[in-house]
Amino acid sequence: MCQLLGMNCNTPTDIKFSFEGFRLRGGLTDHHSDGFGIAFFEDKGVRLIQDDKPCASSPLADLVQKYQIKSENVIAHIRKATYGQTKLVNTHPFMRELWGEYWVFAHNGHLHDYPARRGVYFNPVGSTDSEWAFCYLLEQLRQRFPDKPARHVLFETITEISSQLRQFGMFNFILSNGSCMFAHASTLLFYIIRQAPFGTAALIDEDLSIDFSTVTKPEDRVAVIATLPLTHNESWQQLAVNQSVLFENGQIICQSSHPEQTYLSIEQGLSIARSVGAAY
Amino acid sequence: MCQLLGMNCNTPTDIKFSFEGFRLRGGLTDHHSDGFGIAFFEDKGVRLIQDDKPCASSPLADLVQKYQIKSENVIAHIRKATYGQTKLVNTHPFMRELWGEYWVFAHNGHLHDYPARRGVYFNPVGSTDSEWAFCYLLEQLRQRFPDKPARHVLFETITEISSQLRQFGMFNFILSNGSCMFAHASTLLFYIIRQAPFGTAALIDEDLSIDFSTVTKPEDRVAVIATLPLTHNESWQQLAVNQSVLFENGQIICQSSHPEQTYLSIEQGLSIARSVGAAY
Repeated sequence: MCQLLGMNCNTPTDIKFSFEGFRLRGGLTDHHSDGFGIAFFEDKGVRLIQDDKPCASSPLADLVQKYQIKSENVIAHIRKATYGQTKLVNTHPFMRELWGEYWVFAHNGHLHDYPARRGVYFNPVGSTDSEWAFCYLLEQLRQRFPDKPARHVLFETITEISSQLRQFGMFNFILSNGSCMFAHASTLLFYIIRQAPFGTAALIDEDLSIDFSTVTKPEDRVAVIATLPLTHNESWQQLAVNQSVLFENGQIICQSSHPEQTYLSIEQGLSIARSVGAAY
Repeated sequence: MCQLLGMNCNTPTDIKFSFEGFRLRGGLTDHHSDGFGIAFFEDKGVRLIQDDKPCASSPLADLVQKYQIKSENVIAHIRKATYGQTKLVNTHPFMRELWGEYWVFAHNGHLHDYPARRGVYFNPVGSTDSEWAFCYLLEQLRQRFPDKPARHVLFETITEISSQLRQFGMFNFILSNGSCMFAHASTLLFYIIRQAPFGTAALIDEDLSIDFSTVTKPEDRVAVIATLPLTHNESWQQLAVNQSVLFENGQIICQSSHPEQTYLSIEQGLSIARSVGAAY
């Protein structure tokens, strides 16, 4: 079990502020001390920075802070190993190429008793449930669509495959191809969309605030997705249980809805995580 | 056109010394100032560090030096762009998954008029001849072998595909799956195997020497492959024109041979590079 962080924007944006609070959960304010990873899309390319050391004290995480990489799509993950050894090959996010695009995926949860059949197009290299799920998802997409389908078809298909994978356990994830970002919650996932008029945000995990109005243009729009809210003075929206949301240019462009949407409290979500042998 | 550096060892080894001289060719002692990349296999995982800034002054290259990552297989590349824009997506080494293993590839040369047909299994994301060639090579391997073949079959097949790709231009490359390292020369490529008794090596590009006997165990064996020799007081071996060599555990396990092996002088190699619009 792990924590997820995603950012999808309409302009290349520095994730420094959100990552600052997030990384402290990796070994300092929380116990996700089995490594971290962060993937920045830079145009169609991906800069993937991973470490099997605790994020809070990693020189690679220091680099992320110092280097101030700007990106429109970022996925980060801090890991508490529950399945698979703690080593680089098992460190999220995972990346593969599909339809001439890089796809990046990070998972929070725990799957078990899944059918680890060999894929024709995609196979895991490491030993995690998460990488298997990512490969299964891409395999299904590639089997059904030799060419990339329209966005709404892609959304509906990923939503359907997510519901299959959810049968094997707790399955919160973030997925991006560098233009859009797909988020799916089976228990806890939150997001916030920051846009004009920008205000001040204060981190939960550190005594640090930022006035976004001093670092943005009025037309900027930034969606931040996280396992748990990162700031205490903003209104984070929660994804309903089993809900999927697709972000593009910092706004929601597709979302699944059910007649009876249910939302877990954070305590309920943490309790489920503990009951499946996972931990936030 | 670019310069290549590869290392294949029988024990996890720090590439700091060789990379020190190599990186200075990226913008300081030479003019390969359009970015660099280095991939370290760590067990089955890959740590890929890339920058579109000159290697000699890159904070990411500084990190490689400071972090002292030890690896049995490393591929590095500094780039002088001749084809494709200078951006992250076009920065070597390139990586894909095949047969449940990561494969990493870097190319030195220039291909043209190649048939950029769509692959079933592998497609480039960026716009370089190099990434196309890598995808073509993996596509051919996957089309012929649903499962990974025996090592000598793999060597012969890659050698055959290399000869196809060489028809489109200058094609020196290094390829690894984390256990073995394949090197192919169409013009210039050198290697050295360092093993006991270890001596002192002195870099060409900087006034820096190392006494390997002080940092190795007697059983260590390290093969270093480079476009041009990195040290001036060791005997670098040259690959013959169109020759392929496969390294494993720091030694040669397969190599192609022709009745009439020819070797280019460095000046001839540089001249060919210039004539195809490339530059070392």
